[in-house]
This record gives sequence, structure tokens and C-alpha cells, in this order.
Amino acid sequence: MSIRALGYVVSNLKEAREATNVCREGLNSKNISKIVFGNGFEGGLDQIKNFSHVFVLYKLHKTKKTNLKTRTPLSEEQVGIFASRSQHRPNHLALCLVELLDVGEKEITVRGLDAIDGSPVLDIKPYVPHFDRPERFICASYYKW
Amino acid sequence: MSIRALGYVVSNLKEAREATNVCREGLNSKNISKIVFGNGFEGGLDQIKNFSHVFVLYKLHKTKKTNLKTRTPLSEEQVGIFASRSQHRPNHLALCLVELLDVGEKEITVRGLDAIDGSPVLDIKPYVPHFDRPERFICASYYKW
Repeated sequence: MSIRALGYVVSNLKEAREATNVCREGLNSKNISKIVFGNGFEGGLDQIKNFSHVFVLYKLHKTKKTNLKTRTPLSEEQVGIFASRSQHRPNHLALCLVELLDVGEKEITVRGLDAIDGSPVLDIKPYVPHFDRPERFICASYYKW
Repeated sequence: MSIRALGYVVSNLKEAREATNVCREGLNSKNISKIVFGNGFEGGLDQIKNFSHVFVLYKLHKTKKTNLKTRTPLSEEQVGIFASRSQHRPNHLALCLVELLDVGEKEITVRGLDAIDGSPVLDIKPYVPHFDRPERFICASYYKW
């Protein structure tokens, strides 16, 4: 299947290592980035300013490796890639929930994006509690900061 | 860019209309589906049972249309596609947070997946509050059920 970049990340993060640090800060990250859309998406951002948070779906375009088992930040234990948020995953697709700071005609400014400069953006989706915020949940201890 | 299916959805939902109904129920949906992985992902599901919820990233493979402006379920207002969870989006990529009910060696059973039977699954990511659950947030009124 074929997908295309809708736009690109503009960020101070130049290396995977820096992006990993932002990732580990999660929603507490102070890192500011922009997403600049290409031509052909006029009007697509209308009303997005009514949300505080959006999901950014992007391609880990510099990541080549895939590991089906991986370590997590808080444990030496090896876990399956689908029980992990590691970048070394099949398809190298990343999902990051960010705070929306500013909206322009063809760009948005966000806080907490763990993508390096130049990452191709594949989609933006608003954070909607009815879809995205379970009342009760269980999370593995190796992802509890 | 090229991506591949890691597996496929097995569901009673055969038509987009049925999937839309499940989507609108959000995290309250009772719809049960399976995701069956192809060969080559052995061990990838290890430890996933330590999470109650996972994100499913899949391709809306029957959706051909893209609308940059769209209506929302609760309003007549036209909003931009990136302020919407409509399926008629560039790249036709869907994101759905589901409850994990059961884990087999090559399949998982989930509640609340809004994908039709046969949908190609591109990734599975665990729900981690440190990444995915902002303390405070604002959501547009047209997505408040």
C-alpha cells in the first residue's frame, strides 16, 4: 500500500537520540515544533483550534531497523514490539499526542512532538475523549513513570 | 512511501455504514473483532496482555473519497478534515482505541474496533497514560456526546 506525506515536521530535533528523549518526557515535554502542510490541503485545518490536543501520525523515515522484541525505558525486560512504543517497529509508523499551540493557514505549532526535523506527516486527528479516553485502564508497570 | 499489512481484521462488520455506527459509540461500543497477524511477527505480542487498551492503526481500504471539509456526527457545521475523525481523509488511515479482551499467539480479540472485515492492520500500540492521557484538555462541542 502506498501513502504520501501531507507535510513535514520542522523541529530543532535532528537526531533519533534527541527525539527519544522528548518521547520519554511524554505529555510533560516542552519541545516546540511546527508541522508545515504541502499544497492541496486548503481548509483541512478549519476548526482544529477548538481542540487542545491532536494526534500526529508520522513516518520514522530515518529508522531502518525492525525488532520484534525490545527493551522499554524503565525495565531490562524484553517485550514484544506491539507491547512497546519503540521506533523499531514494522512499518515505522509513529503516533504522538501533542498540545496544539497555534494554527496558521498551512501550519500548526505543537508542544511535545517526538519527531525529528523533516519527518513526513501522514495524518492529524483531534483528541476526542469519547474515542480516546477510557474511564478505566491498565498499563504495564514498565511504562509507569 | 510504502507500507504493508501486518495482519487483517476479522469482524461481523461488512459495510462502512456499520463501522460508522460502531465508531460513533466510541469506547462504549460492544462490538467484538479479532486481529489476525500474518507470519513473521512471532513474539511481537509478548506482554501486551499487561495493557487493557491498545491503539489499532489500520487502512480504510474500501474508502476512496477524500473530503477536506466534512460534517461531524453532532453538527451540520462543515469542519476541516484534520479537525474531524471522518474516514474521508488523505491517506485513509484510521486510529481506534480498543479494549484488549484476549491474546493468542498470532491474534488478539478486541472490543470497540470500528473497522470492517478484511481491513489491513498497520500497527498496534499500547495505551500508555504518560503519552496518551493529558490531564487537562479541550474538545470541540461538535464531538461531545
